[in-house]
Amino acid sequence: MTASTNGDANYVIDGLQYCSWSETVFRQMRAGGVDAVHATIAYHEDFRETLGNILAWNRLFDQFPSLIMPGRSAEDVATARDTGRTAIFFGTQNCKPAEHDLELIEVLHLLGVRFMQLSYNSKCAWATGWVEEDQDEGVTETGRRAIAEMNRVGMVVDMSHSAERSTLDAIEQSSRPIAVSHANPSAWRATGRNKSDAVLKALGETGGMLGFSLYPRHLKDDSDCTLESFCEMAARTAEIMGAENLGIGSDLCQGQPDAVVRWMRSGVWEDEDTPTPDSVKGVGFPDQPDWFRTNADMPGIAAGLGAVGFSATETAGIMGNNWHRFFAYSFGPAEAREPAAAAAAG
Amino acid sequence: MTASTNGDANYVIDGLQYCSWSETVFRQMRAGGVDAVHATIAYHEDFRETLGNILAWNRLFDQFPSLIMPGRSAEDVATARDTGRTAIFFGTQNCKPAEHDLELIEVLHLLGVRFMQLSYNSKCAWATGWVEEDQDEGVTETGRRAIAEMNRVGMVVDMSHSAERSTLDAIEQSSRPIAVSHANPSAWRATGRNKSDAVLKALGETGGMLGFSLYPRHLKDDSDCTLESFCEMAARTAEIMGAENLGIGSDLCQGQPDAVVRWMRSGVWEDEDTPTPDSVKGVGFPDQPDWFRTNADMPGIAAGLGAVGFSATETAGIMGNNWHRFFAYSFGPAEAREPAAAAAAG
Repeated sequence: MTASTNGDANYVIDGLQYCSWSETVFRQMRAGGVDAVHATIAYHEDFRETLGNILAWNRLFDQFPSLIMPGRSAEDVATARDTGRTAIFFGTQNCKPAEHDLELIEVLHLLGVRFMQLSYNSKCAWATGWVEEDQDEGVTETGRRAIAEMNRVGMVVDMSHSAERSTLDAIEQSSRPIAVSHANPSAWRATGRNKSDAVLKALGETGGMLGFSLYPRHLKDDSDCTLESFCEMAARTAEIMGAENLGIGSDLCQGQPDAVVRWMRSGVWEDEDTPTPDSVKGVGFPDQPDWFRTNADMPGIAAGLGAVGFSATETAGIMGNNWHRFFAYSFGPAEAREPAAAAAAG
Repeated sequence: MTASTNGDANYVIDGLQYCSWSETVFRQMRAGGVDAVHATIAYHEDFRETLGNILAWNRLFDQFPSLIMPGRSAEDVATARDTGRTAIFFGTQNCKPAEHDLELIEVLHLLGVRFMQLSYNSKCAWATGWVEEDQDEGVTETGRRAIAEMNRVGMVVDMSHSAERSTLDAIEQSSRPIAVSHANPSAWRATGRNKSDAVLKALGETGGMLGFSLYPRHLKDDSDCTLESFCEMAARTAEIMGAENLGIGSDLCQGQPDAVVRWMRSGVWEDEDTPTPDSVKGVGFPDQPDWFRTNADMPGIAAGLGAVGFSATETAGIMGNNWHRFFAYSFGPAEAREPAAAAAAG
């Protein structure tokens, strides 16, 4: 087993991945010294299908006990690091798994789900996704209640794929800091999927977290994006929202077939009477930039952040300590913990 | 808070209750020194309804944190005792909550369910209940698979309400010791709901547990049953299956309205076109014997067991240590623990 590259006091955490999970991927996590990963377990799956996905993860935990372990709390990240494993935290990229049934939020939390997006790309009962930006009327009344319930049980509101107004509403309505687990500033790469400076500022002011995405469509120059450009973007983002509110959310989809990205995009639109939308035809996963193809490449990002002027403490924060702090005050019942970083970021 | 009546090394555990849960009941548990209770959370409820019942228990845990706590493992019983609380273990009295979906067994286990009856009173897809004894063809093929899955995840097969052949089948087919969490010998009180000597013998030979019921319809002389008669029955049962395989499973239904017992009995038979079965008309809960009306009366049973000749160790075993040992080897994954008592009882 490759030794962890981080010091005793530091964590390396990836705030979002959706790989085709395998021993290879888990060994690369160990090679990269990755102590925890927020793993997407559902997009368009309903509650029962999501349960099946959780059981499939249990089989992976059974099969690879020396590589991975279930992640439920910040303490589990320390346990994972101390035992040379990666803690896997569950999240969903859509509200579909809760089926508009607010009680299922607590049930999903009991089963280990720690992040949920209020919407994926399109409009749903709780919020509007970025591709329907024109019809974004913000977080719905049901969405407001869902946020309150997520706040109560300790499930992070994730607005990575949501449109601007919905995202700003969620930041304002949530009593606990929220996350944009995987996105970049739209000022760097102009796409509705990335976030405006207004969103980033509001996120930082409330102690929320941004995880920098390494998905090529979120990067300047796509697959040709350089590590230096990525890290300079991180430095500019720190000026907007504070380095202590930044992390990595790589959106690594390693090993997924192209059919998966078409399903991600068309999941809620397609039925047997609907032709495949033009936006989906022929779409596939782009190549990763050559400096981040697998989890094993994680140390290179730390080096790049240092090279653009981040201090060792700031770099360690972005590589995982900030997510660790956020995990510590986000996953328990609302009354049990205080969002310390909200004050720090104020 | 009343001090626990048991010594440092002993536990007091009730192997089944279905009270109308309240602060009064929980305070009586503390008064009786009860460290753990297996609480029924569902009879005829489907999966989604059972989830709601679990959430209702979570609200009780939130509301009475100084009196009760969730019970998931034998270690939790020690924690409860050491902190002056009662650990509540979830169980269902029917297979309905799993909806014939074997994957839901693991999901229910993840949510804390540690006991499940293969059937309630009537025939179902997994086994036959005692009131349909005439049509008992034993554990079904689906039931056999359910047992295997319960064995795998660490959920106890409970045959309290099942008919003779189904019960014997379950004892034989289960790779781990099973439980009859609440029943008495039919030789003492003749009712199909109680268990034959053949069942008791097979149960003991495989390290299974019998919890003595204090529900009047399972007692000789009903509500007039004396403590002495109950304890003499316990002594005779120990001769059949070993004192180390005996516990209490009081079936206490304190505070439940009579409508509940009618729902228990007719749950799977009644629909809007079906007249109320004669067996259910006018049925209500009988009065408890005057020596066991609430959890606070638990110490009196220990005294009674001693009076009929059980040693201090045997009495402590029946009052809770035997359940504690059974919990320790029953609730984890199949490969993690050995059924030590099976050898002891052989």
